[in-house]
Amino acid sequence: MHIELIIIGNEIISGDTPDANGPWLSQYLETWNAKLDQISIIPDQPGVILNTLSQSINRSNLIIISGGLGPTDDDITKKTLAGFFHKDLKINPVAQELVKSHYVRLKRQWVPEHNFYHMIPEGFEPLSNNIGLAPGLFFQTATYSIIVAPGVPLEFQSIIKETIPLKNLIDAQPPLYQLQIRTKNITEEMIFNEVGIELLKKIRPFTEICSYPRSFGGVDLVIKSQQDIQTLKEDFLNSPLKQYIWQIGNLSLPELIIQMSTSKKIKLGLAESCTGGLISSLLTDVSGSSACYMGSIVAYSYEIKMDLLGVKQATLDSYGAVSKETAWEMAKGAFEKLKVDIAIGTTGIAGPMGGTKEKPVGTIGIGLFSKNYSHSDLLVFRGNRIELKKRFSQAALHKLLEVIKTS
Amino acid sequence: MHIELIIIGNEIISGDTPDANGPWLSQYLETWNAKLDQISIIPDQPGVILNTLSQSINRSNLIIISGGLGPTDDDITKKTLAGFFHKDLKINPVAQELVKSHYVRLKRQWVPEHNFYHMIPEGFEPLSNNIGLAPGLFFQTATYSIIVAPGVPLEFQSIIKETIPLKNLIDAQPPLYQLQIRTKNITEEMIFNEVGIELLKKIRPFTEICSYPRSFGGVDLVIKSQQDIQTLKEDFLNSPLKQYIWQIGNLSLPELIIQMSTSKKIKLGLAESCTGGLISSLLTDVSGSSACYMGSIVAYSYEIKMDLLGVKQATLDSYGAVSKETAWEMAKGAFEKLKVDIAIGTTGIAGPMGGTKEKPVGTIGIGLFSKNYSHSDLLVFRGNRIELKKRFSQAALHKLLEVIKTS
Repeated sequence: MHIELIIIGNEIISGDTPDANGPWLSQYLETWNAKLDQISIIPDQPGVILNTLSQSINRSNLIIISGGLGPTDDDITKKTLAGFFHKDLKINPVAQELVKSHYVRLKRQWVPEHNFYHMIPEGFEPLSNNIGLAPGLFFQTATYSIIVAPGVPLEFQSIIKETIPLKNLIDAQPPLYQLQIRTKNITEEMIFNEVGIELLKKIRPFTEICSYPRSFGGVDLVIKSQQDIQTLKEDFLNSPLKQYIWQIGNLSLPELIIQMSTSKKIKLGLAESCTGGLISSLLTDVSGSSACYMGSIVAYSYEIKMDLLGVKQATLDSYGAVSKETAWEMAKGAFEKLKVDIAIGTTGIAGPMGGTKEKPVGTIGIGLFSKNYSHSDLLVFRGNRIELKKRFSQAALHKLLEVIKTS
Repeated sequence: MHIELIIIGNEIISGDTPDANGPWLSQYLETWNAKLDQISIIPDQPGVILNTLSQSINRSNLIIISGGLGPTDDDITKKTLAGFFHKDLKINPVAQELVKSHYVRLKRQWVPEHNFYHMIPEGFEPLSNNIGLAPGLFFQTATYSIIVAPGVPLEFQSIIKETIPLKNLIDAQPPLYQLQIRTKNITEEMIFNEVGIELLKKIRPFTEICSYPRSFGGVDLVIKSQQDIQTLKEDFLNSPLKQYIWQIGNLSLPELIIQMSTSKKIKLGLAESCTGGLISSLLTDVSGSSACYMGSIVAYSYEIKMDLLGVKQATLDSYGAVSKETAWEMAKGAFEKLKVDIAIGTTGIAGPMGGTKEKPVGTIGIGLFSKNYSHSDLLVFRGNRIELKKRFSQAALHKLLEVIKTS
């Protein structure tokens, strides 16, 4: 079974709109024990579409196409597909009914002259769109199937999930066992050539080992096998890799923090300066986070650091806003003001301005405060402003996780 | 000139790591008046790499490859490239010196047996990597050039920007004039068939009109032309489209807000519940935001809403935490506590739990408070938790922008 995705759209290839359908589809197919073999991102140009399609039907059994079904002149996917198969674009009665119902659902008036949502290439089946207006398309031959859906992620996902009998298209495959070993403070080289060398050699004969370096200096190992490998968990935790492993599992760092804090009944709070609310946003991305996460004081100005978090003027004067002393007082302030069990404070320089020789862009103070524990650190990372905010947040969350684990 | 990008990596095609190099490269090439014609995302599989490469060299003049240069067994890009060109992978003295210097920069010990960073296909040139360890590669024939860089975004960007004489590879092209018309509360259909129909018909003969529907119910029109089209700005602002245009320009919504607030000397503050710090994070993504953005109180719990923002128990009891009344009191609380000129309050249900029949998942109260203006609204959006947080934030920022514009 060879599955591929063709993403059609000038807005995607130009980098104006990041593609969300590729990653989503890959992860979705994984739940079916299937995977994407190739993704092509191409512009709304008939020649490129035709060329890509003719390669795809030769190598793939299922071709999923996203984009180019909208109402404007550069939405040429249907027209191009019709040309490819030497078919006409015709009014389809089923499509017409679907479009009518889509407009009714969105409480809008359909003017058939304003678009050609109801016209599809002969021989194609229209697919209901439960979110937007444009129907999807389905086409099948003896050797391959084509699914076409709008590029808008919610519509794409809905059509793939709800309308397509994907299980009929994808061959059933034996389930793969999978184990995700998530490490930090270690490089791929160290894992494969030093610390993990023996264990990995031992398990390689009966597993597939994928290594994913994360942008934050950690590496995730994904171990796949046709046989049950749950017992390998123990092997990893008894190996020299142990001290680098922060999780064996599939949770994101914020998910793990929320899960552990909730089960340990630990209330969390933040005082953020340089991370600007990002840590708070990451934690609240997790469904159910309100069970343990109370809130954050984003103190971007000096005044708020002093007025709301009780950071002392003397501390700011002696050590500067970016210092482990200020970070610690911020954490303590959040601990008290937000009435939580553990609080973090972050204060740093995300740049591109504001760096000095002693404290370059990328410097961050991270403070931690709880009833039994208090600590503060000054660290330096590299990257642009957006990357630094992410690295700062990751570093703070890893520190938070350590405290939660021992609480 | 035909330029394409091949992204090699199981972690990308599997959806585990979102690709950042495609969008970045597209935008970077735009600054050179060049563009990407195709992106292929493929796994670390020799067969697929060879197949993709043989198609690429037939249609493109510049092929940029990212990924697969790391130290692990599944990093097979160099080996596969060598095979493709019937060359050997050999120790390259220049590469060796580069790798040595890379290790020194990162204060790490290089063990040549642990990787093959210094080995490259014969006939290829190594490219210095100013961020990581693995050198990039360059190869040129009479009809095409190949650049290979590591997939880690910072390393990829650095090699593309700093090492490659890209201007020698890309043909000089006449500059394109470009105008971005950014609208909200209007669909593509309405623009092209009703509200914008006359103006767009008028300018179509001498422009290229691209239409990008944004996930938040707005549409961006990008007008390109070989002739100067700055005067079209006035035409748009005098057309019926005017009331839907929130910006003619290239700034993101947070960038525009920060720019206008800074120049008008307006201090901004937030009280966030359902958006969980995301609005704050979006504003602080903008370099220089500290000039006008003071901070946020992320009040996820009832207690913090009451204790820090002064939301009345009676308001919570009568109207609920998710209500325009609570949102308004939150905004007022932030206005007072953070001592700002304009404050927003957000309180809603991001789901997937917590919805009721009267207030379904997707409901948000958005309050605004300034010296001369105060308003609150209850709105409903659709999407999953992450999408709703983004939509909520966009809606609040659009309301904030309106107030700033008239302040």
